[in-house]
Amino acid sequence: MFAPATVANVACGYDVMGFAMRDIGDTMTIKKIPSKKWVIENGRGCEGLPIDPKKNVIGVAVQALVEAYGEEIDFGFKFHTSKNIKPGSGLGSSASSSSAAVFGVNKLLGSPFSKKELVAFAMEGERAASGIAHADNVAPSLLGGFTLIRSYDPLDVIELKYPDMLYASVVHPQIEVKTSDSKKILKKQIALKDAITQWGNVGGLVSGLAAQDYELIGRSLQDVVAEPARSMLIPLFKEAKEAAMKEGALGGSISGSGPSIFALSFSRKIAEGIAIAFNNVYASNGILANVYISQVNSDGTELIS
Amino acid sequence: MFAPATVANVACGYDVMGFAMRDIGDTMTIKKIPSKKWVIENGRGCEGLPIDPKKNVIGVAVQALVEAYGEEIDFGFKFHTSKNIKPGSGLGSSASSSSAAVFGVNKLLGSPFSKKELVAFAMEGERAASGIAHADNVAPSLLGGFTLIRSYDPLDVIELKYPDMLYASVVHPQIEVKTSDSKKILKKQIALKDAITQWGNVGGLVSGLAAQDYELIGRSLQDVVAEPARSMLIPLFKEAKEAAMKEGALGGSISGSGPSIFALSFSRKIAEGIAIAFNNVYASNGILANVYISQVNSDGTELIS
Repeated sequence: MFAPATVANVACGYDVMGFAMRDIGDTMTIKKIPSKKWVIENGRGCEGLPIDPKKNVIGVAVQALVEAYGEEIDFGFKFHTSKNIKPGSGLGSSASSSSAAVFGVNKLLGSPFSKKELVAFAMEGERAASGIAHADNVAPSLLGGFTLIRSYDPLDVIELKYPDMLYASVVHPQIEVKTSDSKKILKKQIALKDAITQWGNVGGLVSGLAAQDYELIGRSLQDVVAEPARSMLIPLFKEAKEAAMKEGALGGSISGSGPSIFALSFSRKIAEGIAIAFNNVYASNGILANVYISQVNSDGTELIS
Repeated sequence: MFAPATVANVACGYDVMGFAMRDIGDTMTIKKIPSKKWVIENGRGCEGLPIDPKKNVIGVAVQALVEAYGEEIDFGFKFHTSKNIKPGSGLGSSASSSSAAVFGVNKLLGSPFSKKELVAFAMEGERAASGIAHADNVAPSLLGGFTLIRSYDPLDVIELKYPDMLYASVVHPQIEVKTSDSKKILKKQIALKDAITQWGNVGGLVSGLAAQDYELIGRSLQDVVAEPARSMLIPLFKEAKEAAMKEGALGGSISGSGPSIFALSFSRKIAEGIAIAFNNVYASNGILANVYISQVNSDGTELIS
């Protein structure tokens, strides 16, 4: 399987929006094994991740699936993961693992669940990884495209319309920001006027995506809730964002809880210019950073061989 | 001119969303007069409204327009209004007056401004009426359809896509709720988790309207911010809403700051059933109420003769 990397929040859509990337993600191989055990093998990029299925997001997510499945399964699974998305990058690394695992196990069980139904299981992996069963990474990783979690209780995942020609440039500065720290920095109460600004932008972004109105998409990529606090944890955030805007980005913000930063644009050429600018900002300040460019992914998690 | 009645907030879209009704609204006649004065005549339904142009929303809105126009105007205007929308109903009564006035004066000046540009002038009428220059009634009254105020500063009004077949049923119980009281009852800080729920629903509503997904529209018509507090000011709110849902409403909530209640549905037949149910709830409890049914208006303020 290939499970794409994802950008959660997408500026204004804190905890509810996310999109998937076509060219960046993790790959996982799942094999049936005769014993009823679950064996987790850490492949490339998985150094340091737990291999105990009770502690690894793969095991937790698959456990949620098999519990919902209900029937006895008289074989086990061997999971082998190659990670291109670094844990702690803010690009949905744990979500990719959870998504690939539930997608693959579902296939091996004869597809009793739809892709959308798998979201709830993959969310349990997120709970194991960060303490909160958020869906804004697992939904786009499984389903592709832009997704909206309209409601968590009951879970209501909406696949949004969006323009075909939409590119993400991402920079991952090599510093660590823990999701839990990044959550703690946010206040539990916000000003009503800021909330109004935020939901005006969510409405604008959803409308702009549906209408392929790139200018509206750009104007709506504003975050007055999380970005002002979280950006303080990311060195050179302001400089990186400004550099992206100068290259013609529609807009950008922190990816998930950071430290990665994303910017959207409507052509690969602009996306490349942004990636180069991102890289320059960090390189010229002596901070190691990885940059990525990808069109928005329309397929989500998929079988690749 | 005809300037439609409007439903602001639309459940989740507090302060940013609104829609216009086709069959309910105010009419206004504007005549050029030789003297440079502005004369405001109160027609049917205008009892008690100030006729001093400095105090009437008409004068305030037109003043904002002529200031932006800049050129000397060597004639005056006589405004005659017939109101079908009662002041204090929560159906955008003051917004209709402001919208009709700026629309008509703009025509008489040779249309120097677009309809969208008129929104900022009509907002000044709202400031005079309620102390706050909100745009969630004047934007749909002028432009028609569903509108989103993505941003107030700078003002960014988005005309949303929505299904042709969409009907509003409205009940106006004959009690008075002042917008200023209705604003006061809301807290200036809200829980982040409620804000997230709200912007999830705003995204869902905008997406559902664009995709003509009636079920999604219905699921998204949830308000966890204003309705819980404001509904306490409206007798039989819960009963009225439940009666509407039983008749097949997609959803509903308070119209603007109340006391009117609206419900949306996808057929005139259902809309009529809801209106009857609304009426029954109030009639059976001895409270006088007016009910209205209307398709969503696609034209906004317009010249009718």
